[in-house]
Amino acid sequence: MRAVCYREPFNIEVVDVEDAKILNPTDALIRITSTAICGSDLHMYEGRTGAPYNMIFGHENQGIVEEVGEGVSSLSVGDRINLPFNIGCGFCANCEAGNTGFCLTANDKDFAGAAYGYVNMGPYTGGQAEYLRVPWADFNALRLPGEPDDEFENDFITLSDILPTGWHATVLAGLEPGNTLAIWGAGPVGIMAAYSALFKGAERVFMVDHNPHRLELAEEIGCISVNFDEVDPPEFIVDQTEGNGVDCSIDGVGYQATAPTGEEQPAIVLNQCVASTRATGRIGVVGLYVPEDPGAPSEEAAQGRLLFQIGKFFEKGLTMGTGQANVKRYNRALRDLIVSGRIRPSFVVSKDVSLEEAPDAYERFDNREEGYQKVVLKP
Amino acid sequence: MRAVCYREPFNIEVVDVEDAKILNPTDALIRITSTAICGSDLHMYEGRTGAPYNMIFGHENQGIVEEVGEGVSSLSVGDRINLPFNIGCGFCANCEAGNTGFCLTANDKDFAGAAYGYVNMGPYTGGQAEYLRVPWADFNALRLPGEPDDEFENDFITLSDILPTGWHATVLAGLEPGNTLAIWGAGPVGIMAAYSALFKGAERVFMVDHNPHRLELAEEIGCISVNFDEVDPPEFIVDQTEGNGVDCSIDGVGYQATAPTGEEQPAIVLNQCVASTRATGRIGVVGLYVPEDPGAPSEEAAQGRLLFQIGKFFEKGLTMGTGQANVKRYNRALRDLIVSGRIRPSFVVSKDVSLEEAPDAYERFDNREEGYQKVVLKP
Amino acid sequence: MRAVCYREPFNIEVVDVEDAKILNPTDALIRITSTAICGSDLHMYEGRTGAPYNMIFGHENQGIVEEVGEGVSSLSVGDRINLPFNIGCGFCANCEAGNTGFCLTANDKDFAGAAYGYVNMGPYTGGQAEYLRVPWADFNALRLPGEPDDEFENDFITLSDILPTGWHATVLAGLEPGNTLAIWGAGPVGIMAAYSALFKGAERVFMVDHNPHRLELAEEIGCISVNFDEVDPPEFIVDQTEGNGVDCSIDGVGYQATAPTGEEQPAIVLNQCVASTRATGRIGVVGLYVPEDPGAPSEEAAQGRLLFQIGKFFEKGLTMGTGQANVKRYNRALRDLIVSGRIRPSFVVSKDVSLEEAPDAYERFDNREEGYQKVVLKP
Amino acid sequence: MRAVCYREPFNIEVVDVEDAKILNPTDALIRITSTAICGSDLHMYEGRTGAPYNMIFGHENQGIVEEVGEGVSSLSVGDRINLPFNIGCGFCANCEAGNTGFCLTANDKDFAGAAYGYVNMGPYTGGQAEYLRVPWADFNALRLPGEPDDEFENDFITLSDILPTGWHATVLAGLEPGNTLAIWGAGPVGIMAAYSALFKGAERVFMVDHNPHRLELAEEIGCISVNFDEVDPPEFIVDQTEGNGVDCSIDGVGYQATAPTGEEQPAIVLNQCVASTRATGRIGVVGLYVPEDPGAPSEEAAQGRLLFQIGKFFEKGLTMGTGQANVKRYNRALRDLIVSGRIRPSFVVSKDVSLEEAPDAYERFDNREEGYQKVVLKP
Repeated sequence: MRAVCYREPFNIEVVDVEDAKILNPTDALIRITSTAICGSDLHMYEGRTGAPYNMIFGHENQGIVEEVGEGVSSLSVGDRINLPFNIGCGFCANCEAGNTGFCLTANDKDFAGAAYGYVNMGPYTGGQAEYLRVPWADFNALRLPGEPDDEFENDFITLSDILPTGWHATVLAGLEPGNTLAIWGAGPVGIMAAYSALFKGAERVFMVDHNPHRLELAEEIGCISVNFDEVDPPEFIVDQTEGNGVDCSIDGVGYQATAPTGEEQPAIVLNQCVASTRATGRIGVVGLYVPEDPGAPSEEAAQGRLLFQIGKFFEKGLTMGTGQANVKRYNRALRDLIVSGRIRPSFVVSKDVSLEEAPDAYERFDNREEGYQKVVLKP
Repeated sequence: MRAVCYREPFNIEVVDVEDAKILNPTDALIRITSTAICGSDLHMYEGRTGAPYNMIFGHENQGIVEEVGEGVSSLSVGDRINLPFNIGCGFCANCEAGNTGFCLTANDKDFAGAAYGYVNMGPYTGGQAEYLRVPWADFNALRLPGEPDDEFENDFITLSDILPTGWHATVLAGLEPGNTLAIWGAGPVGIMAAYSALFKGAERVFMVDHNPHRLELAEEIGCISVNFDEVDPPEFIVDQTEGNGVDCSIDGVGYQATAPTGEEQPAIVLNQCVASTRATGRIGVVGLYVPEDPGAPSEEAAQGRLLFQIGKFFEKGLTMGTGQANVKRYNRALRDLIVSGRIRPSFVVSKDVSLEEAPDAYERFDNREEGYQKVVLKP
Repeated sequence: MRAVCYREPFNIEVVDVEDAKILNPTDALIRITSTAICGSDLHMYEGRTGAPYNMIFGHENQGIVEEVGEGVSSLSVGDRINLPFNIGCGFCANCEAGNTGFCLTANDKDFAGAAYGYVNMGPYTGGQAEYLRVPWADFNALRLPGEPDDEFENDFITLSDILPTGWHATVLAGLEPGNTLAIWGAGPVGIMAAYSALFKGAERVFMVDHNPHRLELAEEIGCISVNFDEVDPPEFIVDQTEGNGVDCSIDGVGYQATAPTGEEQPAIVLNQCVASTRATGRIGVVGLYVPEDPGAPSEEAAQGRLLFQIGKFFEKGLTMGTGQANVKRYNRALRDLIVSGRIRPSFVVSKDVSLEEAPDAYERFDNREEGYQKVVLKP
Repeated sequence: MRAVCYREPFNIEVVDVEDAKILNPTDALIRITSTAICGSDLHMYEGRTGAPYNMIFGHENQGIVEEVGEGVSSLSVGDRINLPFNIGCGFCANCEAGNTGFCLTANDKDFAGAAYGYVNMGPYTGGQAEYLRVPWADFNALRLPGEPDDEFENDFITLSDILPTGWHATVLAGLEPGNTLAIWGAGPVGIMAAYSALFKGAERVFMVDHNPHRLELAEEIGCISVNFDEVDPPEFIVDQTEGNGVDCSIDGVGYQATAPTGEEQPAIVLNQCVASTRATGRIGVVGLYVPEDPGAPSEEAAQGRLLFQIGKFFEKGLTMGTGQANVKRYNRALRDLIVSGRIRPSFVVSKDVSLEEAPDAYERFDNREEGYQKVVLKP
């Protein structure tokens, strides 16, 4: 089969590889119809993660069941399914508690959580290919109605990661209807967080970024844009909320945050969240922070330790929730909201390309070319 | 009336001051029967907070109603009451939501939260005196059964601060029955947190400290003691929990944490919490962190910014809750548990002394003399 | 002052009565600008509650502060305020827990809960008059921005009862974003429940009624209408939800429910909720059930005992929450949502009339004349 | 293999039947070491459920893995496991949400929930036999430490049903630490509910029954006994709680409740719960109510409709949660509490007998002979 394979930094190729196949009775095999490139794929693409030669990328996957193992009871050949980016076993303590992003079975004993096609996330190949093996298929597959060529294909593909991750951010931030919210980072996840928040009844959503196109999209869906090249976000937000700050903040940026000067300041967003949130408010963090980052601007940052404003955080009695989304907690309800037409998240997808065009799409996406904000590959 | 007045660092005196009196129709005046010295009083006593000359200390107060304002409906002269250390108005957004530790009315417009006899916590004198004015008395007073000389006087005095603060720590840490828990700091608050956790059905409680007397008390109430002079707490705790870490951690120490070497390392406890807690676990922080600390070991720490292991915190998908206890959320139920004999927190009180002996008691408490771990003044 | 006074069944008059005035230091006095007639006023109007001669009706009240008692700290003369229909003291166990509809202080010792101008709800006169006394005014008043003649006056008046009651119904039913919901009763409360549910992200809302005008309004705001004269609601709803039933049901009708035949069947709606809700679903009841109803169709119903389908309820593992709305739990957030333009509930108000026209308005409302679904009096 | 087989009302036999065996790759086969007789088995034993000739009873099962299917990843031959009475698939909407008692896969399409050896609960044989087939074994098995002949065997066997069902009752009743609680029915489940409640920090637990031995056991574990032959339970309970009623009530009896007269009154316990619970309190129901009961004392009761005091229930703003326990939600934590010695529920087991003695044990249990309150069969 054809697959997107990593070669070296800034170099991927689409090549022939051995076909994906069923290994366990609880596996299924799917033919990929849509597989999206994620911002987190760029960490690997840029060579900052030590991805091995030949690794197949792709954790946002959707397709048609080609074959099922004998231990699979709920799927049949021909079923249309979407896959959460995280892989869960369905029976460990974390999966049972709904924390499927932190499965204790699917990866090494010492690491909670697994995913398709990602460094350190277990021995699972990615879906930027023609076929994909799905472990514990009964548990991991989300059944979809309709056909791959229907109008919902690009709505459904957001169910693998960006939509539930955006939604999860609002959960981590403890967003309740009527709350005010500020989000840092108007990328696909930040936009999905804003879209989710407004759908769930947020009173107002401030979106902090400095990319004019991204801020424009945020405004189109109902956000108040805050350009950090022009204003100081905490000052602006506190001023707009009668001096109190917002009820909830979301860090959708993570450790590669930059100051208006362009300089990398890993803790700047986190500390702006603290400064912008009212006493007893909540902060949700879905932007990535890592325990090891060789390319970090300081030795401490390289070890994942950042100068966090814990003094103010404590004085205000704030709460902070973090971590990757437990996709399965949300994807059924989100699918049904798509089917009933209540949400249409496909507006965030900016481009469809063939699998063969992946190298070009990666390069343009990495260069932040307009129109390449969210690319879906169609094998 | 007689009152404990601050003079200068390490110097307090018991002197005659103007009688406390009712200022507003919603006030009550109480005659103090018990008023405890708190560890946080030592910050002021040691001169690290800029407390003004003549300030009356005391935020753990209990007594008998002497007089009520015309707007008070639920109290009568002679009623026995306990007072939460925090003062709430009862009608602001935070008080209504149960966040009475962050009242928006009782202190300055820019600061959420007020207390008796504490620097920056509003214009309220302390209760280490013969009498005390209680603002919004209907809201702030907790009615007690019985008489001041009964067996429960020292159980009830823990209702002002240490018992609900310990309990609050377990709530911030999201403790559920059956969870494992690790607590840093076996002072009165840490001990009350452990006592609360075991009462609420924790599976096991690890107590981290290095003071043998404190650890002994922790063991007596059912904790597993972890002496950080002898073992590395995260290593020990992870090992004892099948390599996973505990479900919940509590930081009961705060910014004045020290390493086994004796050196002050403000973030050491916080980061040990991160290292000791399992993926998707929760951390509750009731040990104090401050946004300004002129005596801090580094410039960043002086501004309340510490090197926090956010990389590991995020990777594990942890949650952290912080802040002073909202005493009123817990004090009714805790009072009833005392009355029915289900809990008897007075075991933590190590000494009763007269008001006149306060200077001596402060000095001995500040020197960590044995038997002076928790002192209650009896005016 | 002028006030709407009850005379005898089907007879109210607008007459001169003694002016409302401040009785306690914590009272305020307001000049009424809007006061709505509620469906529950009709129970009294029709003579089914033993309302005394001369009683002043009106529990949905809004106006301008004319005078404040000496114990009131947050209100000033000239402030524009809305009042929850329920009266709370702010300091009893229920008020503290947010259950302000069940205040233990404001009414008789044996009855939890108080209200303005309602039989058995305490000694408080109603607001269908020129002035109104507000007890515990700091706690009960909700500050409003703007002026009484602005565009929001009729949005704000819904904050007293119907909007938070509709919202409360969704909370009692445990509605989460993405859930399906069925509501019985498309009166003002049912419409507000549907409006709230859709705002909060319900997937689909079924509205069950048989009045074509009401169902039309429900459809206009996005509901699927279910006319119980035409279809069997449980059958229809289960069929539309893949045989499972809805996640949540709301009974917005109560004990005066009628079958398609027109016959009164007090338990019909409750049992249809049971039949229409999926296993492990939730039912919220805001339609009134009473422990005594002399006019009931059976002796058991007269004592508040109805033939409830507990067998099916248990087999499905359902949950049921009931009771009047704790308005204060919701009214701040709902006010802010109005001010920011996110919700505009005034669409449910069908008519403004002067206070003097109250007798005519009551009669037309009681006759269900079109255009009199929700009437606001403007003294 | 030998198995307990139903013959006709009041007649079971231990006979040779075909060996249990693995049918699907996700099955496991276990050799039973302990299997308990449950009160609900008596419904079948007494012939009130239409159980078929030859049916094998037994839904409280524990044993050693003899064989695993190829799709099972977490179990090995020789593992010691306990089985929840309910069978879940692990991947349907209900199982994913933790509602494993209402699995949508394991039973017929129209009925949520399955169990071993119970009428209408799916095609699964019971465990009162030498061997048992376990479907979806990774999901349904709970791993136990130690060996079958260790001191915990009878503690662990309570994990299948009575302990988690008792615990679930406290969850359905919304019990929080510090709450007062009343329980109706001091059978094994009621006793486990009381034991759970006290372990979790209930303030006081009232136990209502009229069997002196049962009430004695309740008192031994710390309950206040209420003999309904001697006092009116609601009157007594309200009096003991300052006229308010308890925070929470648990109905551990169900539809076969009897009045002091001995007469069956199906709704008496439910309505006593309503009368005994304070305004805004919660009621949890684990005693069984059924939609069809041919032997009921009235035609309505035969259809599962009972005269429920909904009027008072609504006036007080009560909440009611019902349904069988989702065992998997609790059994990991409860197992760990047993292992750490925090709880020892085996005190409720009154007798161990061999499998061959089952007919005698059933008869004595059905006759409520002393010492036969909770019998465990040891094949």
